[in-house]
Amino acid sequence: MAIRKLYGNLNSPATLKVMSCLFEHDLEFEFVSVDLAAGENRKKEFLAMNPFGQVPVYQDGDIIQFESRAILRSMAHEHAHSMNGRELICFDSRMQAIVANWIDVEDHKFEPPACQLAIEYLVKPKKELEPDQAVVDEAQAKLAKVLDVYEGQLAKHKYIAMDKYTIADVLHLPNLQNLMNTPSRRLIESRPHVRAWCAEILARPTWVKVLEMQKKAQA
Amino acid sequence: MAIRKLYGNLNSPATLKVMSCLFEHDLEFEFVSVDLAAGENRKKEFLAMNPFGQVPVYQDGDIIQFESRAILRSMAHEHAHSMNGRELICFDSRMQAIVANWIDVEDHKFEPPACQLAIEYLVKPKKELEPDQAVVDEAQAKLAKVLDVYEGQLAKHKYIAMDKYTIADVLHLPNLQNLMNTPSRRLIESRPHVRAWCAEILARPTWVKVLEMQKKAQA
Repeated sequence: MAIRKLYGNLNSPATLKVMSCLFEHDLEFEFVSVDLAAGENRKKEFLAMNPFGQVPVYQDGDIIQFESRAILRSMAHEHAHSMNGRELICFDSRMQAIVANWIDVEDHKFEPPACQLAIEYLVKPKKELEPDQAVVDEAQAKLAKVLDVYEGQLAKHKYIAMDKYTIADVLHLPNLQNLMNTPSRRLIESRPHVRAWCAEILARPTWVKVLEMQKKAQA
Repeated sequence: MAIRKLYGNLNSPATLKVMSCLFEHDLEFEFVSVDLAAGENRKKEFLAMNPFGQVPVYQDGDIIQFESRAILRSMAHEHAHSMNGRELICFDSRMQAIVANWIDVEDHKFEPPACQLAIEYLVKPKKELEPDQAVVDEAQAKLAKVLDVYEGQLAKHKYIAMDKYTIADVLHLPNLQNLMNTPSRRLIESRPHVRAWCAEILARPTWVKVLEMQKKAQA
């Protein structure tokens, strides 16, 4: 039995966030695909792991977690020392305060409009539905304001929280990748520092590995 | 000049969360009231601290944070050792993983419907508006499902994450307090473990101190 198991779905941004962090830390794990369409996440055994019935669920020995940001935080803390100084968090609590702040910015400001745009532009067409232009416009307006703040932050720092790559950056990957596959990519491309940051982090080998896994599963 | 400054509003649940945590750690701070109605949060000096223009903002020396959960996390980490073993986090990363998980449950599951009910039942009447029954019904249905999970969790543990009081509990205080002032309190009172937990944590002297400060400001 694998020590670490990731129960998730390769179309779930939260699942991909955890996967990217596992690859960053070079941790062995077993990926257990959860068929959401077949309702596997509503079955008794799954609900015993996550009573809210959502993916991902991460099992590391006797610890079970189901909130993706919590999974990344604790993984980054527990395995930082195996990273040869490249750790994705800060052990100084005052520096980690800054990382924590930007983790919550991703959670509360960036992800909601980014997810909405993915639903309108990427999910709906698969169901042969048209994007709702009013929803798109509102989400784009919200995202533009957030990216204005990001542009200012990234003019001062190489990465979103500070000058080093942290889990605050990792958390942006799946939604940035989705946005780049929609017409909303112009919101990223029109802001030079956001564009450069986005291009760099989406090119990380660990993220490329996630995308390859996704492609293989879809083939 | 005070080392620690909390810029906020006594009607903002996020401000009260930070205040409660400051009292728990017995930290001196200056409270700077931000008049949201007068747009003080849109002024240049405020936006320089929080580009998103929201309260609270917490300044501890040269560190500025504006996401309440991030403020609580780092405060609890930095000042845990002054707590004589009563620290509100865990230094064991695997135990902290569980706390982190329940912090995000509060954020993603509990707060959204709880805030919606506060708006309908507490904010709207102040503006002489009627609560929207459809919104109330939907929020109550969502909250009921969350509290069913809480009832199961609190049957196993004294507090929401584990058998000790942590910042995951602190984060629930303002919204629990608001809910107890609305007809939705029946959702809490009908679940024995949730009811007992709620009664105990709302009676903590540090929370009572927050409420007294709020009352004094409104007088």
